[in-house]
Amino acid sequence: MAVVVGYVPTPEGRAALRRAAQECQLRNTRLVVINSNRGGKELDAVEAAAYEQELEAVRSELDGAGIAHEVRQLVRGLEPAEDLIAVAEEIAADFIVIGLRRRSPVGKLILGSNAQRILLDAPCPVLAVKAEG
Amino acid sequence: MAVVVGYVPTPEGRAALRRAAQECQLRNTRLVVINSNRGGKELDAVEAAAYEQELEAVRSELDGAGIAHEVRQLVRGLEPAEDLIAVAEEIAADFIVIGLRRRSPVGKLILGSNAQRILLDAPCPVLAVKAEG
Repeated sequence: MAVVVGYVPTPEGRAALRRAAQECQLRNTRLVVINSNRGGKELDAVEAAAYEQELEAVRSELDGAGIAHEVRQLVRGLEPAEDLIAVAEEIAADFIVIGLRRRSPVGKLILGSNAQRILLDAPCPVLAVKAEG
Repeated sequence: MAVVVGYVPTPEGRAALRRAAQECQLRNTRLVVINSNRGGKELDAVEAAAYEQELEAVRSELDGAGIAHEVRQLVRGLEPAEDLIAVAEEIAADFIVIGLRRRSPVGKLILGSNAQRILLDAPCPVLAVKAEG
């Protein structure tokens, strides 16, 4: 049993991580944090270093909370949806936690294609969390 | 604290209810089951009676499992998304559980507008569950 969370350093990514950590404490299960990045031109060295620093902070936060965890930074040319689903299948995840952006100010529906793919194709339930406020 | 579940007598509706009941047992919280129906011409007397029977079965199942619950059959001309969000706000739900249909055989994305609205506009996290197999 494990919970998988898709993590990016945004308000909704942090909200997803926080909620996933709470769910792991409640269930006494381990947390697998996935930071998925297509890599290639989109990821330069400065950005990669910043990500590494963010993930290091995540690791020590989870250590502090006593939550068994694993952080995987995946840069293998896949979309985040593909990476998350593959890991969820591999470890037979209990569920996946993802962050969702709120509606845009004009109220447009902005459920991204990655979120839709995860919701529809995940082998397990998906908990969708929005950023606070 | 309570969990809200949108219930319809379909495979995905039953999967959502089952998962919501498990989450309530884990958290020791109460379950609010919402069966939302626009009413009007869409709901004839035979269908309404069938729904009532299904909901009665749900009630006794939850009774048997010892889960504190409340079943609300809402027929007030609103979309299911509106009803679920209104109840979640009213009772400050911990999260909402919804059932999602799987992809169609041709693989088309079929995340319905009600599901999208709940995911984007709910005041709390949303757990999306698919039917088994």
